[in-house]
Amino acid sequence: MAFVTNDNLTGLAVERWATAHSPRTAELMTTLVRHLHAYAREVGLTEEEWAAAVEWLAAAGRISDKTRQEFILASDVFGLSTLVVQLNNHFSPPATPATVLGPFHIDGSPAMPYGADMSDGLPGTPLLLTGRVLDSDGQPLPDVVLDVWQADADGAYEAQLANVDEARLRATYRTRPDGMYCVRTVAPLGYSIPMDGPVGSLVSRTDISPYRPAHVHFLIDHPGHDKLITHLFRQGADHLDSDVVFGAKDELIVPFTERAAGGTPEGGIIERPYLLAEFDFILQTAKSQ
Amino acid sequence: MAFVTNDNLTGLAVERWATAHSPRTAELMTTLVRHLHAYAREVGLTEEEWAAAVEWLAAAGRISDKTRQEFILASDVFGLSTLVVQLNNHFSPPATPATVLGPFHIDGSPAMPYGADMSDGLPGTPLLLTGRVLDSDGQPLPDVVLDVWQADADGAYEAQLANVDEARLRATYRTRPDGMYCVRTVAPLGYSIPMDGPVGSLVSRTDISPYRPAHVHFLIDHPGHDKLITHLFRQGADHLDSDVVFGAKDELIVPFTERAAGGTPEGGIIERPYLLAEFDFILQTAKSQ
Repeated sequence: MAFVTNDNLTGLAVERWATAHSPRTAELMTTLVRHLHAYAREVGLTEEEWAAAVEWLAAAGRISDKTRQEFILASDVFGLSTLVVQLNNHFSPPATPATVLGPFHIDGSPAMPYGADMSDGLPGTPLLLTGRVLDSDGQPLPDVVLDVWQADADGAYEAQLANVDEARLRATYRTRPDGMYCVRTVAPLGYSIPMDGPVGSLVSRTDISPYRPAHVHFLIDHPGHDKLITHLFRQGADHLDSDVVFGAKDELIVPFTERAAGGTPEGGIIERPYLLAEFDFILQTAKSQ
Repeated sequence: MAFVTNDNLTGLAVERWATAHSPRTAELMTTLVRHLHAYAREVGLTEEEWAAAVEWLAAAGRISDKTRQEFILASDVFGLSTLVVQLNNHFSPPATPATVLGPFHIDGSPAMPYGADMSDGLPGTPLLLTGRVLDSDGQPLPDVVLDVWQADADGAYEAQLANVDEARLRATYRTRPDGMYCVRTVAPLGYSIPMDGPVGSLVSRTDISPYRPAHVHFLIDHPGHDKLITHLFRQGADHLDSDVVFGAKDELIVPFTERAAGGTPEGGIIERPYLLAEFDFILQTAKSQ
């Protein structure tokens, strides 16, 4: 090889990473190197800025642990997480669109009966989320498992809390033979992303709102259909039009209507005024079917 | 704002980061967001690859500490560190070219007299590095401080070793009134970058050689001149044409000539055969002068 000059450096770096043994790794790495170099040349990156970036990455590493993943948060606020979801979930209408998984999903949530309360006495306005799971032709799908999780009134997910013994604001529900599901919980609230780390430090140097609008997460992985990871958002909630992670989509915004205490559509009783949200999830038929 | 779609997402993310309060931060962040999105679109980044990248960054964070900075190493092997040096050090010939600082420089190395031995009994072939420090017009510069550091025979820098009480293979030297400097040490050897972390894991999936050729680091920060951070490389050393951090440059390759035991050019005596390397550093006059 020739020794390094200003002109040949990027080409040399790309050539080297093109030796990756897997063609896909070679593609991923050479394209990464090209973009890193193009970025540095385009902005005329100074040595101080380079050093600050290295320190930022190290700080993001230091603050990340089992309950916090600062690099996911960075990807979220750069719009990269949502972009990757969009690139990989080519659902056709009327299928329900996907959004980001987020860093707070926990595997193995307990199975709850139709209409059971996953909020277990936590503070908040009672909320019934109900509707059907349908296939792309509008046929109800029985026995579909919905994995549901949300933050508490302080904006905290179980995954962020130490010393939680039992599942907290997360559960799985199953559709009935008629395709209906029913989740009882408390109404989610908007919350700020954690602002005490390197991502917060960047965001605070802009006018970007650090809030997410009120939402509940759903993961539906049903045989014969593409896995659907999505949220439902409360219509009229604050921050819908400035969701810091770019998650809010028109199709996922649902009215939470106020209901008087008493009998509920699913046949139970709620002894306080509550909110009712009705939404049909429509799954995309898997390509290989 | 409109809700997110495939088409508007990148534009929305760029718009948001354009609200940074400092114009330079806005430029750095919007360009970063554009390149991140372009990268993901260009390679069709899958969700598994995105998750692997997040985990890679977290692992790089976990392995980084006071004696190891995996993100600098990553920047090095991507050629980014050298590119940033090139972008920020526009030296005109005959000025000595700059190379990367590397992660192992320690401030405050002890001052040593002309010709004193900074290797302090460590194993290796004795080496005298000598020559002049000149300005761009070829005039010798007296009283210039040269900050010198290198790895030991195992490829380890003091910064990588625990429990080192005294400065180890690092020192500062000062030029005489005639511009001459003289460093006594042991001949540096080539070494591999650390391969037990996330960077090594990437490199091992390619045919990239993980070695650096034998070199000694110099930092010369003299009033009225641009700071020079550079290496000298041993002519004929292994790995010169495949330096894993892209540091080797023609102008920095110096013959290490074999000398018999006995009197040395600087007037001392070395009682074993030794190596002599002669190199004149030429400093770039600072622009503001």
